Formats: sequence, structure tokens, C-alpha cells
Amino acid sequence: MLALVFDKKPELVEIEDSKAAEGEALIAVEAAGICRTDIEITQGYMEFRGVLGHEFAGSVLECGSVPDLVGKRVVGEINIAPGVTDDLARRHAPDRSVIGIWKRDGCFAERISMPVENLHVAPSEVDAKSAVFVEPVAASLEILEQLHVRPVDRVVVVGDGKLGLLVVQVLRLTGCELLLVGKHESKLKIARSFGVETELLEDVGKERFDIVVDCSGRPEGLQTSLSLTRPRGTLVLKSTTAIPPDFDPSQIVVDEITIVGSCCGPFPPAIRLLADNLVGVEPLIEAIYPLSKGIEALEHAARPGALKVLLEMDRNTS
Amino acid sequence: MLALVFDKKPELVEIEDSKAAEGEALIAVEAAGICRTDIEITQGYMEFRGVLGHEFAGSVLECGSVPDLVGKRVVGEINIAPGVTDDLARRHAPDRSVIGIWKRDGCFAERISMPVENLHVAPSEVDAKSAVFVEPVAASLEILEQLHVRPVDRVVVVGDGKLGLLVVQVLRLTGCELLLVGKHESKLKIARSFGVETELLEDVGKERFDIVVDCSGRPEGLQTSLSLTRPRGTLVLKSTTAIPPDFDPSQIVVDEITIVGSCCGPFPPAIRLLADNLVGVEPLIEAIYPLSKGIEALEHAARPGALKVLLEMDRNTS
Repeated sequence: MLALVFDKKPELVEIEDSKAAEGEALIAVEAAGICRTDIEITQGYMEFRGVLGHEFAGSVLECGSVPDLVGKRVVGEINIAPGVTDDLARRHAPDRSVIGIWKRDGCFAERISMPVENLHVAPSEVDAKSAVFVEPVAASLEILEQLHVRPVDRVVVVGDGKLGLLVVQVLRLTGCELLLVGKHESKLKIARSFGVETELLEDVGKERFDIVVDCSGRPEGLQTSLSLTRPRGTLVLKSTTAIPPDFDPSQIVVDEITIVGSCCGPFPPAIRLLADNLVGVEPLIEAIYPLSKGIEALEHAARPGALKVLLEMDRNTS
Repeated sequence: MLALVFDKKPELVEIEDSKAAEGEALIAVEAAGICRTDIEITQGYMEFRGVLGHEFAGSVLECGSVPDLVGKRVVGEINIAPGVTDDLARRHAPDRSVIGIWKRDGCFAERISMPVENLHVAPSEVDAKSAVFVEPVAASLEILEQLHVRPVDRVVVVGDGKLGLLVVQVLRLTGCELLLVGKHESKLKIARSFGVETELLEDVGKERFDIVVDCSGRPEGLQTSLSLTRPRGTLVLKSTTAIPPDFDPSQIVVDEITIVGSCCGPFPPAIRLLADNLVGVEPLIEAIYPLSKGIEALEHAARPGALKVLLEMDRNTS
């Protein structure tokens, strides 16, 4: 089968076809999404070698243990920990693998095999391209798993990239007083189309917020986010960025700020929000490439300011 | 009156006597404690100039607004914000001053004037030397104000200094499974005398804890504390330390760790615990100097590994 593999550099190669192990399902990948993490992996992050990709939707081809799954459209939780049935425990299992990120092949391929406990059926109203967004919408919902965001809270999201544009849509549903701060007028416009108030970074005043979500993915964004957090407020870190060199942690102690690291999230509520059209993904799709043009797709996704680039797998070539 | 003043260097000088402004009480300082922050101030922290010191107990000499206070032993909350009646709001008031730290003279003097709303009467069973510890015990209790520490939680405190030895005593009262990690066998022994399990830093294994409290005051201690925090666990920062140069924040995101900055705390429960002998301070007192030997006292307190050094004000010299 065709796969987009990273080994020192990304390459499109024919590899041995995926097979479903005991307790797994073999899935024909329909569509997959390129995430910032994938780009970082091609720059050396996690020292990953293998098939790239962790955001996908596909159709089950074979499943010995749950035959009813065959023919269904599914999405897959990315943390693999055989025998661990609780999804939160899987996400933090010390010996887990992570598809396309850590010790296990990913989904930028024609087929992928996944443990049954990782799979969720996408209802018919969620098409394959939308279902690719289940993973990042789940990561956005993780904020609400970790934090009680109250309807009266003043919340600011820093960073108008792919993740920021999903996070604001999820947070908007709490009724909180919400602001998105970013550098790109074109992206802030997308947020406004979802009913979210926006402000250019350069126009941000001295107001400080109850909750700040850093989706900037940049060291200087982290400093901005901290300066926007009120005393005893909460700063959520959604992206792994380096600490800026002049970072002064004494504000964290003196202002008693809580910092919450936030990573992967729960799939079922993400599927519900997408099925109910409470989160919109169409405006976030910048381009769609066939898997056979995967290298160009990666290059496109790596452009500064690029929104979501999708891959579509042509099953006729399988 | 005699006072220990910092202006480029610490000096014992005769300064104009304190006077009680409207709504304030004039207090004869009986005893005061030297804190690590005082040492840092003599090294340039906060660019403070004036009378040093923020931990004290004293006897009220004059109080126009609450005459009943006269003759009582009091302790004083260190954050001054005139007109702000809520103590948590005072601690985070943007225009506050802080005695001996920021824009207001401190307590290493024969007399100090304080707003009445900052004062708490110490009951007769708390002597002046013990009452000096109300401020750091309150700072220890702030952890329990911010966090729900459950009786089944596994908690480790990193750092066996003055603050660490108070923090473990306060946390012990929750019934949690508690460990103090430090570098000094002599101090760990004090913790064991309070019934706290201890371990030398070099013997610490790979176990990770639900809650980690960093009282190390050192960059490398922060790294140790983070490595001891379990996925989805909480790391409490009690001291303002620099970020270590090789600090990798990605663990915070991937392991979804919550970091809680923690500073000053509530006085009334600290007074109750001291009055009920639930927190012991006697073994933490390393030396007592008269105010007239304040420079030597500061030098002693600055020695690596020093425990609490107290000042006693001789009222006969006033």
C-alpha cells in the first residue's frame, strides 16, 4: 500500500499492507489531516520514524472481534495501550504508543490497523473530511474536561491558527465572555464568522482575564498569555513551546497563577458537537491533496499561517 | 526609634518614630522573623529601600479606631491596600504595598504602624516568638486554600528549609501520604520529629506523586519537582526561582500537569493551628538576636542551610 513515511525525510513509498492484529480492526483511510505536530516530527520532534499522521477518518474493512464495525465510518483515538480500557488512562499510560508520533505507524497510508477500544463510529451526518477534525476538537474539549469554565468567566484565546479556531468554537458554547487574539486579520475573520469577538495582538490592552488559553505555539506567545492572566487566574497551555529566554516565573508565584498543561481529549463529545453542527470546520480547510501528492501537502501545511491541509486516500489505487 | 534599614546595604539606624495614620494601629514590635525574601531583598530583589522585615508579632500601643486593641498581642497581614476589606483581594490588589518588600516600611524596627484591617489578635497561648510564624504558616495553608488535598493523595514536598518544614506540618494534617525530600539529614530529622516520612534527594526513586510542592527555592529543585509529578498531577510553586536553562516545558503539556503558583495565605487558620499546637515551630528557631545586633542576625540567616533567625526588640531602649 502507499504510505507517507518519515525516515530522515518524508517519502511516499509502497510498504507492506497493514494487517489487523487480535482485537484490532483494519481500516481503509478515507481522509487524514496534517497537524502542526506532523510538521514538527519532520523537523526531528520525538525522533519518530515510520508512517506519519494521527488525524483520520476511515471505513472498517475487517474486524474479527466486533464484526458489526465492518463498513462503518470510524475515527481513532491516537494513544495505544493494549488492555487499558479507560480512555484517560490510555492517554497517560506510561508504555503507550501514539500513532504517527511515538513507536507506532500513523494514518497517512491507504490502510491502518487500530485496536477496537480506540475506535468511535462517526454518525452519517459527519462526513469523512469533518470526521478528521474529531481529534483536534477532542483536544479542544480537553480544556473543559480539566477546567470549570463558567458562563461569566472572561476568557481569551491567544493564537489564531487551526487549533485556536477550534478552541474558540468549543469555549463559545459555555456562554463565557470570549476573545480571540491573533496576528492574522484573515483568520480572525473566520473566528468572527463563528460569532467570536477578536482583536489583533498589537491592539490588546492591559485588561487581564480569568482564563487564558495559549494556542500560539510560540515562546513569545507564552509571555503574552501570561501577561494577560489575572492574579489567581488560569493559563492553559495547549502547545509545547520553548520557554522564552527572558521568562520571569516570579509572576506565577506572586500572582498565584495556575498553569494547566492540556493535550489530547475525549472523542465522544467531539463527535456529538460535529454531528450537531455546533463546531464548524469547513472554513478551516485550506487545501485537499491526494495521498499521492503527500509531499506537496506536507510542504503546503508547513507554510507560515497555513490552515488545515487534508489528504484524501484514493482507494482505487489500493 | 532603632530600625534595620536597607539602602544599598543593610544598616542599623535611628529613624523618626512610626506614627499611626487614620485607621491604623501603632504597634510595639516584640519579635520578628528573617525570611529568605529579606535576604533576597538585601541582594537587590524588588529594588526595595526602607525598613526591612515582614514577619512580626507585637503589642498594640495606640489605636484610635479600635481602642479595644490596645495592649493586645497582634500579628499583621503584609499586603496593605487601604479600603480593601477582603484579605484575598488585598493580597492581589494591583496598587497594594507590602511591608518590608514593596513601597512600605517593614517590621525590623521598634515600632510599626499597620491598618487595623490587617491585624489579628494572637491568643495568649501563642507567645511572641511563635506568633512570628503566623505569616509563613499562613503561606503554607495557602496551598490548602488553592488545592483540594485529599486524604488518599500521595504528596511530596521538595526542600527541607524553613518553609518546607512548615508546609509538611500543615499538609500532614490532611491525612495524606506525605514525603519530604531534602538534602540535609539534620533538617529531615526535624521533619521526622513531627511524624513526617523523609528521604534524601539522592535516594529518591522513580515514583511520581499526585501533588508535588516545590519549596526548594532553586532552579534544579524545580526540575526535580516536575520529574516527581505524575501525569495529570499538580505541582505547587511556593518559591520564586529562575527557570533552569535546560527546562523542557513539553512535559507539562504532554503529561497535562497543573502548576499552581502559591504565595501569601490566610492568617486566622494559621493562628488556630499554632494555638492548638498542631504546628510546631520551636525546632525551627536557629538563633535569636536583639535588634541592636540585626546586621549579624541577617548574616546568620543568609548562611546556607540556616533555619529561622529571630529578632527580639528590646523595648527598654525605646
